[in-house]
Amino acid sequence: PKKLVNAVSGCADDALEGLVSCNAGLRLLQGHRVILRGDLSAVRGRVALLSGGGSGHEPAHAGYVGKGMLTGAVAGAVFTSPSVGSVLAAIRVLAQAGAVGILLIVKNYTGDRLNFGMALERARSEGADVRMVVVGDDCAFATPGKAGRRGICGTVLIHKVAGALAEAGAGLDEIVEKVTAASKAMGTLGLSLSPCSIPGSKPSFQLAEDEMELGLGIHGEAGVRRMKVLPADEAVETMLKHMTDPSNASHISLSPGCSVVLMVNNLGGLSCLELGIVAGAAVRRLESRGIRIARALVGSFMTALEMAGVSLTLMVVDEELLRLIDAETTAMAWPKVPAGPATTRREEVPAPVDVPGKPLDEAGTGPGAVQVEQVLERVCSTLLDIQDKLNQLDRAAGDGDCGHTHARAAHAIQEWMRSRPPPAAPSQLLSCLADLLLEKMGGSSGVLYGLFLTAAARSLRGRSDPAAWADAVDSGIDAMQRYGGAAPGDRTMLDSLCAAAKALHSLRNPGADPLHVLEAAVQSAEVAAEATKHMEAGAGRASYIRSSRLEHPDPGAVAVAAVLGAVL
Amino acid sequence: PKKLVNAVSGCADDALEGLVSCNAGLRLLQGHRVILRGDLSAVRGRVALLSGGGSGHEPAHAGYVGKGMLTGAVAGAVFTSPSVGSVLAAIRVLAQAGAVGILLIVKNYTGDRLNFGMALERARSEGADVRMVVVGDDCAFATPGKAGRRGICGTVLIHKVAGALAEAGAGLDEIVEKVTAASKAMGTLGLSLSPCSIPGSKPSFQLAEDEMELGLGIHGEAGVRRMKVLPADEAVETMLKHMTDPSNASHISLSPGCSVVLMVNNLGGLSCLELGIVAGAAVRRLESRGIRIARALVGSFMTALEMAGVSLTLMVVDEELLRLIDAETTAMAWPKVPAGPATTRREEVPAPVDVPGKPLDEAGTGPGAVQVEQVLERVCSTLLDIQDKLNQLDRAAGDGDCGHTHARAAHAIQEWMRSRPPPAAPSQLLSCLADLLLEKMGGSSGVLYGLFLTAAARSLRGRSDPAAWADAVDSGIDAMQRYGGAAPGDRTMLDSLCAAAKALHSLRNPGADPLHVLEAAVQSAEVAAEATKHMEAGAGRASYIRSSRLEHPDPGAVAVAAVLGAVL
Repeated sequence: PKKLVNAVSGCADDALEGLVSCNAGLRLLQGHRVILRGDLSAVRGRVALLSGGGSGHEPAHAGYVGKGMLTGAVAGAVFTSPSVGSVLAAIRVLAQAGAVGILLIVKNYTGDRLNFGMALERARSEGADVRMVVVGDDCAFATPGKAGRRGICGTVLIHKVAGALAEAGAGLDEIVEKVTAASKAMGTLGLSLSPCSIPGSKPSFQLAEDEMELGLGIHGEAGVRRMKVLPADEAVETMLKHMTDPSNASHISLSPGCSVVLMVNNLGGLSCLELGIVAGAAVRRLESRGIRIARALVGSFMTALEMAGVSLTLMVVDEELLRLIDAETTAMAWPKVPAGPATTRREEVPAPVDVPGKPLDEAGTGPGAVQVEQVLERVCSTLLDIQDKLNQLDRAAGDGDCGHTHARAAHAIQEWMRSRPPPAAPSQLLSCLADLLLEKMGGSSGVLYGLFLTAAARSLRGRSDPAAWADAVDSGIDAMQRYGGAAPGDRTMLDSLCAAAKALHSLRNPGADPLHVLEAAVQSAEVAAEATKHMEAGAGRASYIRSSRLEHPDPGAVAVAAVLGAVL
Repeated sequence: PKKLVNAVSGCADDALEGLVSCNAGLRLLQGHRVILRGDLSAVRGRVALLSGGGSGHEPAHAGYVGKGMLTGAVAGAVFTSPSVGSVLAAIRVLAQAGAVGILLIVKNYTGDRLNFGMALERARSEGADVRMVVVGDDCAFATPGKAGRRGICGTVLIHKVAGALAEAGAGLDEIVEKVTAASKAMGTLGLSLSPCSIPGSKPSFQLAEDEMELGLGIHGEAGVRRMKVLPADEAVETMLKHMTDPSNASHISLSPGCSVVLMVNNLGGLSCLELGIVAGAAVRRLESRGIRIARALVGSFMTALEMAGVSLTLMVVDEELLRLIDAETTAMAWPKVPAGPATTRREEVPAPVDVPGKPLDEAGTGPGAVQVEQVLERVCSTLLDIQDKLNQLDRAAGDGDCGHTHARAAHAIQEWMRSRPPPAAPSQLLSCLADLLLEKMGGSSGVLYGLFLTAAARSLRGRSDPAAWADAVDSGIDAMQRYGGAAPGDRTMLDSLCAAAKALHSLRNPGADPLHVLEAAVQSAEVAAEATKHMEAGAGRASYIRSSRLEHPDPGAVAVAAVLGAVL
């Protein structure tokens, strides 16, 4: 699989260098894959915390180094335990910086236990006060081996709890005791749709096109069950059931009424959209079990390279643990913790008060209701008549639905007129039509007509003299251009509309005959529509202006000319 | 492609519900895909900020809602502009909450411009003071169309700048003016190794196994160039060159000495490991151009579903802009901004002071140097003699290198003895051997021998009477079990070692003959090693204890028995 890396062998080093270069508060330890707090002197007189493990789980563990969390993190190569020498060097630095005790927080894997353990034994021989907690939180296996549960994402919560305790000045014994208790009240389960691959290697396993796997390890180790991909809600329910099943020796006990911290962890390649959906499902499903979700953390906390999967971690918390989770930390990868519990029962903001409608009639303006109805009826029938023609023109250049779109508008107007007489005042008429087309016509066309009519309506407020109509069309065109980004010459409805507008300017001449002017405008529009057949599509991204050079006119421009003809 | 969703049509809604359920500070607007600050009353007398767009770009935009950033965000379906009705409803809520002005921050896409623009026109008709800034930051196209640059990840920086200004009480005009200027001094470019796929649809395009694409849009729109996958450093250099090339009309001007904010954005499915590597490369390459990276933000800010790619955003900043970027916000998806500039020239923490070696001899304890050399020589030659046999045993159950591993140890000891006489004091002798095997033997075996010897050495400090040796072996076994997780019966070296240890307990009897006891211990070890042939592999994860039921003894157990025999 493709990777954006420099060299396979340098991945872990390059990633750590990237992290340190972007974070002024972090430092590398010379000669080792060890990240340390830049303000190491702050550790004097306190317990220092060291964690680590193989790389490939970023932001774990170096991302959790900072005030209030880890003092340092030791990294190995991708999915490989860090060397004893680097762990020992990190311990020595912390001891020499004046830490009164050093706690190693180790995920439960043989390699990590051995290497951190060896370093611990050596450091003790040198007189350092070092202890180790081994975190195992994986609820995958119903009968885990002697080594117990594997250490996965829950380890991050242990970093936080231990970090907050150390920052508050707690001693080594107290920290060990409290995080050991917290670990026991915690469980994690993973679910994945895909494998991951170490840079330079093949994917760790294969999953069928329609399968997902429950209980995978964060290095792609086999899980407990493969099944068809389930909807997110059911997938989450399956996870929670497995994690809390008392017949599963590695389960976590949850009783109704208890409070938990929930972590929804992206294993790497899952989209943030899906992660949000899973988070919502987890909150819903936990609530239905009577569990209180005191805090929910959603993000990438402990990844398995690019694995498209998720893990859920639950830690039963009391007030003290919650305070420790909430305590401040400068560690970059620890998220902003929401200020309250997670719940699906959050009140919605009520929909806004409808802005009071304008008075139904502006007396003394505009043509009579009868004329309006006649004009609109003719516009509608015309659009319905040319529906197939417009579709055909659009098929050559777009998605072939231009006729349908305009027919939708026609039907909407007809239905509207059957339900009530249209307002006779031009401003209100166009404003109502704008609402109608926005709601019923759909697509960009609906919005473009809506923009045109809304702006035109504003221009006609309290007026209906011929010049006002010329101004209205100009305003409408202006609004369409401002937001649509197209201009005349771009092979759009603007081509015929602008040609008509130019002709309509004559309405401003005193004594001009409106019908003659409109007739000229219709002719201009028809000529301009026909002329689009030789144009290339112009600006913008939407399909209505994306067409290649064609021997057919633009259907939007043709429709505008037809509407004007119908009005005439 | 597989997705962890409930139903294709509900993805956007489900994700927003998930977001709101996990964040106590956010609220949904009834009947709309609109996320609002829970403390809407805080907007009274201030400018409110509204952004949004299609879903699939999470955490954008709803993740940026909070004090100091957006007041609200409007979402559409996946990769689809939000409806005019929802934008308008959001504007009305903000106006009714008492905002003195409302700014719409819109990414430059026709659909978004039209729908936000339409809502703006309607809201203005209702008397609201609404303005719109259209953000275009995509440096992909050398000759962008009339619509200008597409709006991509840089939009998030505009949210931040505008949000900090609004929070500080700036007016609508001032905010529009400053974010317009900031937009112009900003550029973004994407690079991807994979397409993405809308839930329920096929991937947006295909990329060859060894290809990447430069300048892709965040909906999978075509970029400007496909090329073979480059190493991360060269890929970043290619991106920066394209973004800053003056012959590219959409480039961003960078001059040596200027300060920038850098965003390294995961487009969705890139591993965090790779993201860190790219971030490091970006800092290095910018520094080499004389650019000062005032701040570097690394994470998932504006994604394209699960696209495995990255985008780089650069915004030229002065002190005021930097203060606005640094200002506090409660928005969940805005990262902790590092407290200082990004640079590859961060000082490393010096390696720790070597802990002073123990004195070379403890007078009057232990056998003479001559005997020690003889014993070690015999151990080494024995291990070399059985190398092939151990490999063969290991091939049946593990990776076949057990003999090589022990031979490496033997060669290391021989070389070490040639360089200097081994210390005669048992504690020092075992301690030196621990160092040597840790460094040279490698693998889990090296660490296990190291653990054994280190603990045994501690037990022998200042002692070398027969009982002390029995204690030492017990201590060593204890350390191995503590960290290794295996126990006798698990088909490991512990089986023969524990059998020997039991026999060695007789050393504690006054008057026991050490040679007789050792002879019995060797016999017990050999019997125990042979007995492993009927055992199943026990606890733990590493290969040294993972083997199936076999008719051969465990090579580690055989090696231990052979070493004891050689000592005898």
